[in-house]
Amino acid sequence: MKLFTFPTAPSPQRVHIFLLEKGVQIPFEFVDLQAKAQLSEAYRKINPRCTVPALVLEDGTVISEVISICHYLESTYPEIPLMGSNAKERALISEWDHRTELESLLAIADALRNKSDAFQGRALPGALDVEQIPELVPRGIARINGFFEILNEQLGDNQYVAGSAFSMADITAFVSVNFSRWVKVQAPEELIHLHRWHRDISRRPSVAEHRKLCNG
Amino acid sequence: MKLFTFPTAPSPQRVHIFLLEKGVQIPFEFVDLQAKAQLSEAYRKINPRCTVPALVLEDGTVISEVISICHYLESTYPEIPLMGSNAKERALISEWDHRTELESLLAIADALRNKSDAFQGRALPGALDVEQIPELVPRGIARINGFFEILNEQLGDNQYVAGSAFSMADITAFVSVNFSRWVKVQAPEELIHLHRWHRDISRRPSVAEHRKLCNG
Repeated sequence: MKLFTFPTAPSPQRVHIFLLEKGVQIPFEFVDLQAKAQLSEAYRKINPRCTVPALVLEDGTVISEVISICHYLESTYPEIPLMGSNAKERALISEWDHRTELESLLAIADALRNKSDAFQGRALPGALDVEQIPELVPRGIARINGFFEILNEQLGDNQYVAGSAFSMADITAFVSVNFSRWVKVQAPEELIHLHRWHRDISRRPSVAEHRKLCNG
Repeated sequence: MKLFTFPTAPSPQRVHIFLLEKGVQIPFEFVDLQAKAQLSEAYRKINPRCTVPALVLEDGTVISEVISICHYLESTYPEIPLMGSNAKERALISEWDHRTELESLLAIADALRNKSDAFQGRALPGALDVEQIPELVPRGIARINGFFEILNEQLGDNQYVAGSAFSMADITAFVSVNFSRWVKVQAPEELIHLHRWHRDISRRPSVAEHRKLCNG
């Protein structure tokens, strides 16, 4: 098994922190997104979607959605469960992970990719050429702020995003709060539960280890 | 446990066919989307996101993402597995289900909700007021067509969407191919693998049962 990755980008970050929380090491290879290596002929042969991360299994099967890579890793290394141990936990972790991806990560990506010159013709990730739509920038910003209020409310009632235990939902939400700085959105100070939780997660060894990986 | 639903809409459809494939019956209550009942005060108290489906558990917990409802049902009624029985199956079913949601269902929703007068101010589902962006209509149509080509290629190599067994990935893709007709997109005849598979799925008893439910 081998992970194709670029550890500073938000989607690969979710997988790296997931692996570090489990204490699992797998071989990986960097795909330099800044040099657009994900669009190269060589990488297209590995993952025709031209996205990272991509997990290549021993038999050549490629898994390229973060949630699906994490399902594979959770089944293969079940010891420290991050996706729940019973029906209700699994549902709630999936609920918050999925909502965070749709309502926050995709909204941030909209605000970033429809504005920056670096993403001209590439307003969506992947192989398809997609022109920018500037109206998606304010829509994205409004959605991020709306989601942060919901997240704050949830964290007022719960220590972690999906309840009383750390889970994949925390990883996705943490990555999303950090990613929002790329579009100059910061959660307002009055969202005190969100900030309490963000400080807690920042102190986890997995986050420090991931930072080291990014700094090479 | 109780499911709040509107069986003709694409998201609830995924849950109904999932339940019918498992042979499981749970109590449900209709939320009339045509009358905008999902925005009523009464429904807001049940699901503040104002979306259907929503599964309310015995202890009052609300699960409102389709994938998360299905995780709950799969854990509770594991007998006919629809989300995989080992690491690789789970990952591949998740991969295709998730891709279909992001690349097809959301693209169709973009093409529908940013055009029709019925969705003015409600270009995204849920409680937030979101204005329409007409440029999302052609972007959505292009993405749907791109995804159907990918799905056709996948079905040229596999009997079902995620491999040799029927799974949740087939349900989501089937719902998505039917939903695309709402924006007048039909997969071209030359996508023969997609059409072969669509005919196969159409003949499943779960699909006939779901149709009966829609026709009251």
